[in-house]
Amino acid sequence: MSARREAILRASAKAIAERGIRGLRVHDVAEVAGVSPGLLYYHFKDRIGLLEAALIHINDRARDYRSASDVPADSARDRLLHALLGEIQERPDVVENSLAWNEVRACAVYEEALRGPLARTTRAWVSEIADAVSRAQAAGDVVATIDPHRSAVTMTALVEGLSGRWLCGELSADEARALVLDAVGMVMPSPVRRPGPSVMSVTCSEIHTQKEDR
Amino acid sequence: MSARREAILRASAKAIAERGIRGLRVHDVAEVAGVSPGLLYYHFKDRIGLLEAALIHINDRARDYRSASDVPADSARDRLLHALLGEIQERPDVVENSLAWNEVRACAVYEEALRGPLARTTRAWVSEIADAVSRAQAAGDVVATIDPHRSAVTMTALVEGLSGRWLCGELSADEARALVLDAVGMVMPSPVRRPGPSVMSVTCSEIHTQKEDR
Repeated sequence: MSARREAILRASAKAIAERGIRGLRVHDVAEVAGVSPGLLYYHFKDRIGLLEAALIHINDRARDYRSASDVPADSARDRLLHALLGEIQERPDVVENSLAWNEVRACAVYEEALRGPLARTTRAWVSEIADAVSRAQAAGDVVATIDPHRSAVTMTALVEGLSGRWLCGELSADEARALVLDAVGMVMPSPVRRPGPSVMSVTCSEIHTQKEDR
Repeated sequence: MSARREAILRASAKAIAERGIRGLRVHDVAEVAGVSPGLLYYHFKDRIGLLEAALIHINDRARDYRSASDVPADSARDRLLHALLGEIQERPDVVENSLAWNEVRACAVYEEALRGPLARTTRAWVSEIADAVSRAQAAGDVVATIDPHRSAVTMTALVEGLSGRWLCGELSADEARALVLDAVGMVMPSPVRRPGPSVMSVTCSEIHTQKEDR
């Protein structure tokens, strides 16, 4: 991506995070980015085009810090956890991203034109988390019985809900992260390590079944 | 509550839901409610006072429809489920409440003065859900091992996150409700019904423990 395009998108995300969507004025963004409004219109067509590009930029940036704490030795489950916990951190870039994302979500309720771009970026985020779940299932780190997409929708919605409380100062980042961590354990549990099959354990389960059938 | 006060609060919630917080103009609300701005200031002091009263009104209204589908035969777990599922329904009053709540949440990020009123109303909502969890635990409908308050924070944050997607048209009310239902099963599980103790089952569990210890 060209340095100018990058500068425009950085300035847009910053404007949304600081002053809200209503603070996203094409001419201001052009000025902050040090480009002509003409170039901005050339790149992004209109305010909605700029907004969609800014959302993609926000999700790209999030992808970077979601995996920032990964190390080669990490398990597939560690990477899944980092991807979800990465969204809630006391770091200026994460806070700015989260502010901008929550603001677009809130405004899309009122401004029809924002919904398409937001829905597409949300789908991209959800499928990245769903892929991380599938990889964790393939590695035996998450039970095979859960649906990766469904659990990814739930966990990303929870991250959005907890981020709203965090950004309002109702929860600290640590409290919100601890709740995400607990939820992953319940929504995307690790397989329970059972003792290997044996005549005895088979017999036991048979007995239990019979008891329950009565 | 006086009929006039009620009319003012209804008009405020409607204004927020339709035009956002920025649409909450004391004079407009007074006009819609058919009262003088003076009376409105007399009741609520200022815009923030009106907003806090509107939030309490929204939570009171939510309390009514959260339990609307309860019948005497309902278990404590049924009531807990209704309380959470009641927030996401294709009903004008529920949609209006949800729109207004999400809007205040989004604006509180930018407007410090909204945070106190929102935090107090959120705490009230969370403790109502926590009480429903405690009642379900006392009735043996929810495992005793979970913390009622903590699980209530998680579930209400999930409801907020899913409501945002629902109000943006990314999820239908039915899809969002199905995800809430699944999450309750994972975050607030029912106790597993085990067969009654017997020499055999004790022996089995002992054998399993020994296997695991190895």
